[in-house]
Amino acid sequence: MADYLYGINPVVEAIAGSGRQPLELLLVENSHHQRLEHLRLKAKEQQIPVRLVKRQELDRLIGHERHQGVLLRLEPFAYLTLPELLGRWKDSGKNAFFLILDGITDPHNFGALVRSAEGAGCHGVIVARDRACPVTPVVEKAAAGAMAYMPLCQVTNLSRTLTELKKSGVWCYGLAGDGEVDDLFSASLGGSIALVVGSEGSGMRPNTRKHCDGLLSIPMCGKLMSLNASVAAGIALFEIVRQRRSGA
Amino acid sequence: MADYLYGINPVVEAIAGSGRQPLELLLVENSHHQRLEHLRLKAKEQQIPVRLVKRQELDRLIGHERHQGVLLRLEPFAYLTLPELLGRWKDSGKNAFFLILDGITDPHNFGALVRSAEGAGCHGVIVARDRACPVTPVVEKAAAGAMAYMPLCQVTNLSRTLTELKKSGVWCYGLAGDGEVDDLFSASLGGSIALVVGSEGSGMRPNTRKHCDGLLSIPMCGKLMSLNASVAAGIALFEIVRQRRSGA
Repeated sequence: MADYLYGINPVVEAIAGSGRQPLELLLVENSHHQRLEHLRLKAKEQQIPVRLVKRQELDRLIGHERHQGVLLRLEPFAYLTLPELLGRWKDSGKNAFFLILDGITDPHNFGALVRSAEGAGCHGVIVARDRACPVTPVVEKAAAGAMAYMPLCQVTNLSRTLTELKKSGVWCYGLAGDGEVDDLFSASLGGSIALVVGSEGSGMRPNTRKHCDGLLSIPMCGKLMSLNASVAAGIALFEIVRQRRSGA
Repeated sequence: MADYLYGINPVVEAIAGSGRQPLELLLVENSHHQRLEHLRLKAKEQQIPVRLVKRQELDRLIGHERHQGVLLRLEPFAYLTLPELLGRWKDSGKNAFFLILDGITDPHNFGALVRSAEGAGCHGVIVARDRACPVTPVVEKAAAGAMAYMPLCQVTNLSRTLTELKKSGVWCYGLAGDGEVDDLFSASLGGSIALVVGSEGSGMRPNTRKHCDGLLSIPMCGKLMSLNASVAAGIALFEIVRQRRSGA
């Protein structure tokens, strides 16, 4: 987990207000850089503890030298457990609506996906821990604020999670471009649904795919066979929204 | 227009095969960098002319020093004119289907939008020249091959283009989050259509908006008011696909 960020601009933005509480600001000692001094004052104003450290200490913490003399430690991202997420759904009194990500590693796509899930009114986003993208500032920026509203749940075993969801009456649909798939626009998408989206390159893992109740594909009208992962998921999420509103 | 690219990795990728023909490889002279030597051999193999230049010459051409000693000149991106694009539509014998971009500057979004337009079977993508993102390697990568199939047309005056399209019987719908909008899923989207998408930050320009026949909005079910621009456009493009297929 990236529970820190570095570089002047990202740190300025995070201190100006992100979803997560800054815990400590580390600044390189003996610097008279105006923007670092400005950051020090900002942090003081917001009662964020500031520590001056040697440049080598920052290099060591971050693993390289491209930190511009500044590192901000953040509180850890607060994931929900699966029982907590299922509890929230049941409390809502509505049909379940989950987005499940199996291998989304691009931070822009991950952020856009969380944003789309929030916009579609999902109860939460479930990610497979071993193929997840950590919640970095790039992800938070791409999510455009959605991280603050959309519960995220990391699970260690996605197949077991799918089995558990199915036991709770949730239909698990995988988004796939090939195989025995149903056309997204011909499928009946009422009831409690979890939409599973695989990685940008290779899609869902075979074991994830096997645990889906059904596979859905978006009809492609050109020469290419697939869309950007977050665009494809957005189309499927809002087709579910459309069918629910029309009482399908 | 970016008709060149630089840096070892981007140049290696472009020489390995991109949509556009490499015209000339410029390498810094007196370098014994192994990867530059490798590039020189690759270029020779593919009969791409190689020129050795002074480092300062590369700095001057690119405007900064972060080129790693290599620059590749590419053939210019081949845009279609508006009459050419309209000709292609008319030759197709189908209802028109255009995507119009008014201020998409993020290269990832631009690429994903062209990819979605190709996937939805659009006749072409029209961009406003003064608010366009040049077709860079980042755009081409995000388009995942769609640049080779999807005609792109740059226009100097988008309002005039919209007027021209309307005269040809094309309905111009703007995607908007506010104002007097129709719900995307309640609108009737048959016939010849151009979908206009504004910039990520501020949407369509007022003058573009004014020239649309109607505005469409995606129903938002969460707390946020908008989606990523390429996700929103993907949802609208495929709602048009859905309605056309169901004979709406």
